[in-house]
Amino acid sequence: MNEKMKTISSRICELTGITYPIFQGGMAWISEARLAAAVSNAGGLGIISAMNADAAYLKSQIKLCRELTDRPFGVNILLLSPYVDDVARVVREEKISVVTTGAGTPGKYIEGWLQAGVRVIPVVASVALAKRLEKMGASAIIAEGAEAGGHVGELNTMALIPQVCDALSIPVIAAGGIADGRGMAAAFMLGAEGVQCGTRFLAASECQIHPSYKQKIIGANDTDTIVTGKKLGHPVRALKTPFTRQFSQMEKDHDLTQEEADSFGAGALRRAALEGDEKTGCYMAGQSAGLVKKIQSAQDIIQEMMQQATILLKL
Amino acid sequence: MNEKMKTISSRICELTGITYPIFQGGMAWISEARLAAAVSNAGGLGIISAMNADAAYLKSQIKLCRELTDRPFGVNILLLSPYVDDVARVVREEKISVVTTGAGTPGKYIEGWLQAGVRVIPVVASVALAKRLEKMGASAIIAEGAEAGGHVGELNTMALIPQVCDALSIPVIAAGGIADGRGMAAAFMLGAEGVQCGTRFLAASECQIHPSYKQKIIGANDTDTIVTGKKLGHPVRALKTPFTRQFSQMEKDHDLTQEEADSFGAGALRRAALEGDEKTGCYMAGQSAGLVKKIQSAQDIIQEMMQQATILLKL
Repeated sequence: MNEKMKTISSRICELTGITYPIFQGGMAWISEARLAAAVSNAGGLGIISAMNADAAYLKSQIKLCRELTDRPFGVNILLLSPYVDDVARVVREEKISVVTTGAGTPGKYIEGWLQAGVRVIPVVASVALAKRLEKMGASAIIAEGAEAGGHVGELNTMALIPQVCDALSIPVIAAGGIADGRGMAAAFMLGAEGVQCGTRFLAASECQIHPSYKQKIIGANDTDTIVTGKKLGHPVRALKTPFTRQFSQMEKDHDLTQEEADSFGAGALRRAALEGDEKTGCYMAGQSAGLVKKIQSAQDIIQEMMQQATILLKL
Repeated sequence: MNEKMKTISSRICELTGITYPIFQGGMAWISEARLAAAVSNAGGLGIISAMNADAAYLKSQIKLCRELTDRPFGVNILLLSPYVDDVARVVREEKISVVTTGAGTPGKYIEGWLQAGVRVIPVVASVALAKRLEKMGASAIIAEGAEAGGHVGELNTMALIPQVCDALSIPVIAAGGIADGRGMAAAFMLGAEGVQCGTRFLAASECQIHPSYKQKIIGANDTDTIVTGKKLGHPVRALKTPFTRQFSQMEKDHDLTQEEADSFGAGALRRAALEGDEKTGCYMAGQSAGLVKKIQSAQDIIQEMMQQATILLKL
């Protein structure tokens, strides 16, 4: 790594011990140890997704990541996971540098994590939740706009970030629609002190997803994503594929029940990420997929983003 | 006006002859001559909305605006207006500095406008349409993200702007979610050369809307807007009020027909803007309403935005 590369000084780097204030998003079936280690080795924060797996899976992932990097990395916990208590305990016992959380409020785990020296950085989509989590002791906040891939809220990055920054004292990391140094520089103008990227890292050479998933990201245009599941209260952004088109049609045709949706969607993300199943796979991706044009190493992605951002920011 | 105020040099200023690259959005029932003249006098580009009115209305508005300012201003044309041919002709005959267009493709008018010296700047929400309009001779493009108030597309500002900028040679103006100097600086980082603001100018002292509309904007939080009309193909963002809640419920309850929607919505924006009708008025607003905290003159709004943006951009 070119250690002379310019960075952007921010409280996020001080807080987490990373060189460049770029987090790799915690994506189920995608963000595993090898991608996370590559991002951390490149000076960003790699994040392992605990997804819906048990403690043994997470422990093995942490072990592998530690074999591959001696730099800080994070774990993302889905608060709806059936194993949430177990994986929350693993994060505490293993004294992971950073835990990020999604789909809920990590209230009851926060104190234990902080006592173990874990920085707690929840992902939020509104000012009210961000304020509540700051009061509960969150170390920082990831504010994510609806241009992001996967589970999304109602607010978009350009409007969300400055409003969250105005409301909080702790540092804010911007997510949603950011895939290059322009988006990173824009996020800093809005008051953010770091960025989290998901879609861009789907095309990292160290990302273990099926090659067809990467090709779909690289080939995507601006209008190639769609949000489904809104009616059921769990909107998800993914590429337009046979799966999402059919899901969207089912939503239009009748009042889809949660059971129907669950049964239709079961395993769809795994089928995309691991099997590259074009017909029944759900290829989660953000609106920034149109900005991702090639497969690069995590290090090249981070170096390219930082170079572009620091020039734009006149650093 | 403090003529020594710093600006941001951009092709938009050269193209249109304005001092500060800030457009005031063309909003039906809201953007009339007095607001437009105030914005133009402050160094930005004021824009009169031709809305669904006839040529006589537009002519009288242009006349009034010319009495109030000798600076460039624009006219916004809704391409769905029943009087579109007439108002397009007025723009040409009056040799208006800038015409912006929404809700369609202004193809057949472009040549006539350009011949009359009118700069043609369509509002678009996708890369494909932006490219088509550049080919047709558009002078610049306003790329608007779905955080905007009023009619919205699918793409959000943070992801849309860099993709449109990559695709075009003509200058791009960013719209959607921008209400202060932070948003303006962010837009320039993304590659835009100007910004268009609607919601912020709702709270301009020269804006002639009902005082209760302004108070609603000033009191709004981040999550206080909602998009209705999506199913019918005409999504509109407005404040959460009895009107939009009822509309949203009607959409959920059954397959709303265009006739029902038209009948329910008829006059709703006028009732909000002119009468401040809390029950049946439709208060269009963007997600940036939460950033708008006080009533200020157009000049103070522009000076404040420019000051903040130029500091952030280290100009």
